[in-house]
Amino acid sequence: MPIITLTTDFGEKDHFAGAVKGAIYSELSDIKIVDISHSVAPFHITEAAYIIQNAYSSFPPGTIHIVGIDSELNPENKHIAVLLDGHYFICANNGIISMLANEIRPEKIVEINIHDRILTNFPVLDVFVKVACHIARGGTLEVIGKTIETIKEIRGIDPHINNDETQIVGSVIYIDNYGNVITNIKKAHFEKVGKGRPFSITSRTASFNTIYNNYSDAIDFGTPADKRDEAGKKIALWNSSNYLELAIYKSNPATVGSAASLFGLEYREVITINFK
Amino acid sequence: MPIITLTTDFGEKDHFAGAVKGAIYSELSDIKIVDISHSVAPFHITEAAYIIQNAYSSFPPGTIHIVGIDSELNPENKHIAVLLDGHYFICANNGIISMLANEIRPEKIVEINIHDRILTNFPVLDVFVKVACHIARGGTLEVIGKTIETIKEIRGIDPHINNDETQIVGSVIYIDNYGNVITNIKKAHFEKVGKGRPFSITSRTASFNTIYNNYSDAIDFGTPADKRDEAGKKIALWNSSNYLELAIYKSNPATVGSAASLFGLEYREVITINFK
Amino acid sequence: MPIITLTTDFGEKDHFAGAVKGAIYSELSDIKIVDISHSVAPFHITEAAYIIQNAYSSFPPGTIHIVGIDSELNPENKHIAVLLDGHYFICANNGIISMLANEIRPEKIVEINIHDRILTNFPVLDVFVKVACHIARGGTLEVIGKTIETIKEIRGIDPHINNDETQIVGSVIYIDNYGNVITNIKKAHFEKVGKGRPFSITSRTASFNTIYNNYSDAIDFGTPADKRDEAGKKIALWNSSNYLELAIYKSNPATVGSAASLFGLEYREVITINFK
Repeated sequence: MPIITLTTDFGEKDHFAGAVKGAIYSELSDIKIVDISHSVAPFHITEAAYIIQNAYSSFPPGTIHIVGIDSELNPENKHIAVLLDGHYFICANNGIISMLANEIRPEKIVEINIHDRILTNFPVLDVFVKVACHIARGGTLEVIGKTIETIKEIRGIDPHINNDETQIVGSVIYIDNYGNVITNIKKAHFEKVGKGRPFSITSRTASFNTIYNNYSDAIDFGTPADKRDEAGKKIALWNSSNYLELAIYKSNPATVGSAASLFGLEYREVITINFK
Repeated sequence: MPIITLTTDFGEKDHFAGAVKGAIYSELSDIKIVDISHSVAPFHITEAAYIIQNAYSSFPPGTIHIVGIDSELNPENKHIAVLLDGHYFICANNGIISMLANEIRPEKIVEINIHDRILTNFPVLDVFVKVACHIARGGTLEVIGKTIETIKEIRGIDPHINNDETQIVGSVIYIDNYGNVITNIKKAHFEKVGKGRPFSITSRTASFNTIYNNYSDAIDFGTPADKRDEAGKKIALWNSSNYLELAIYKSNPATVGSAASLFGLEYREVITINFK
Repeated sequence: MPIITLTTDFGEKDHFAGAVKGAIYSELSDIKIVDISHSVAPFHITEAAYIIQNAYSSFPPGTIHIVGIDSELNPENKHIAVLLDGHYFICANNGIISMLANEIRPEKIVEINIHDRILTNFPVLDVFVKVACHIARGGTLEVIGKTIETIKEIRGIDPHINNDETQIVGSVIYIDNYGNVITNIKKAHFEKVGKGRPFSITSRTASFNTIYNNYSDAIDFGTPADKRDEAGKKIALWNSSNYLELAIYKSNPATVGSAASLFGLEYREVITINFK
């Protein structure tokens, strides 16, 4: 029996996530349900896209991912089920999986059409659960939807490269739990454009000439702990998802501050890399 | 084997919820445990009542719901186990399930009396887990408690109707993750009193003459997206639990604000419906 | 198949915890995974130590506890796996389980040495999951590490006793979800030093002469509810983990305040017990 995962903006407090789990277990008593996140900012499609992209591939092939963000059905927001990279995604066609679909071509996309039988303003509970359980039982996508060819795109996900390839202009797509700032610049892309040239990264008050592979690589462990400049050390690195991240060593947003607060960087803020 | 659910005010950080799950698995290795919420505001019985009422019925019959809010045993706060609508509830007799019991008559109520064997200031871990595992194994309520006839009521749960039935005076019972304001006025009740008459809803600065069934119903999708008045649109609707809800279209309490902040509405605030 | 638990500072929002669960299920489809906490303050080793110490023993023997706080591998931060009290702990050697190991001697400690095969800046996903699944399959610690004799200690965990045993000077080690203040003074230690003598507890503006066993013991239920001094009642008690706790009866940090806010007490603040 496959796993069903949940990624939503329901928050940790309300009954929504609990009700969804109850409904799944009512249909399939042996299924495993895994919470990926219920703390996506309300209606924040880019955050959801970043989270699901970085979590899904750790799960076994065949896993069914319910993504419940901005999922009310209306003329501009249809429901889709997508098979991509061996995983199933059930969500609104609002761009949530376009970050994924940018890199890996979906094997199949259907627009869910079981709504004539279901009237609801809680579609994750009433529609997505039914679709997920259908897939978990081995049902095909064609039974619950009609095939479509393309999905809606989120804009602003890809960085811009200038014509002579001396500059990448990206932007902040996510702030993580440590207040670290994640940009939309990926390692493979950077290396392809940069071709090993020296570079400088700037974003508001922050600037960097090195990108590390680990937080600890920025610290000189040869110097005694009380003499090295470790607390508050500013770092650019490739994070575990291979995105360029601006960080503060061992930051805590609630106490000493974080990259986001110290550099004054928020979602959509511009970050520029100049090659020399 | 039935499911055991947890609804508590333990929060997401402390060891309490983890310890409770460990204790359940130590007794029953094959059980499924589902978190409904651990983020009920501390000691907030009405919030817990609203959450458990709207989550429980999605679960299969026979599910055992542990509700750990204000559960320390004292002369005014006894422990009960209740069979209602085919589900078991284990909680303090402090009104938490009176919202449920108002609508559906409990089949059986017992006051738990296994405490002479258990001394504790963590009763969810030490008492409720034992009772839940006893029920999960197929044990009867009579073994762990003595039958009682009534449970303690929360006051202020029901709205007030005036004598000539021209007015319903309700109140705010819950603010959800999107900052939407949920009142204690239910759809069936409203329709019975209103009999299809026109009406106006007022609460502080907010007023409404229509109650929608979906958020999207309030938006005119015939008008182009950049010309319609969508952001910040004020909506009254029947939420997925059939309570009257005052909402802002796609609100985010942390950024653009929410119904609760924009209307200045908090828990217990009055909301009035006048029929014409 | 044993249980794997997770205690981290990943927060509730990011993809980290979901990815870790996916990776475990990809290796072992039948395992149970239990979240103890993902809301430890970033890099806060003492908080993590307090949480894991108070949660682990509710789980069945043989449970495998992944503790993912400050776990990036560097010359001063090695990875260890420890068998202690019949439970397995996988974490960085940064003091997290020294609070446990202070009271119960570890049966076995190994320094994990599978890193030459794994390069990563997400060691919980890439290293700890592999070690946990190895142990869950019945593998021995010797296969994934080399035996070491001691682990790194956290300083400041133990209270200080003066020479003539008239004074215990402790400190705040944790603030819980209710804003209650937990100190590092344990009941058994207090009783051994105090030998039944009268005492006074002081910490900033707070002072106490009694330590209760339950919150409710501080309330006089013989007096009618509207006449007794219950709201905001200041209490010292032995909490469910047998630590000295300073509390406010039915506090809520977000509304009426809590012991932490009302007494002005934070992590590391000093608390003094004088015996007479």
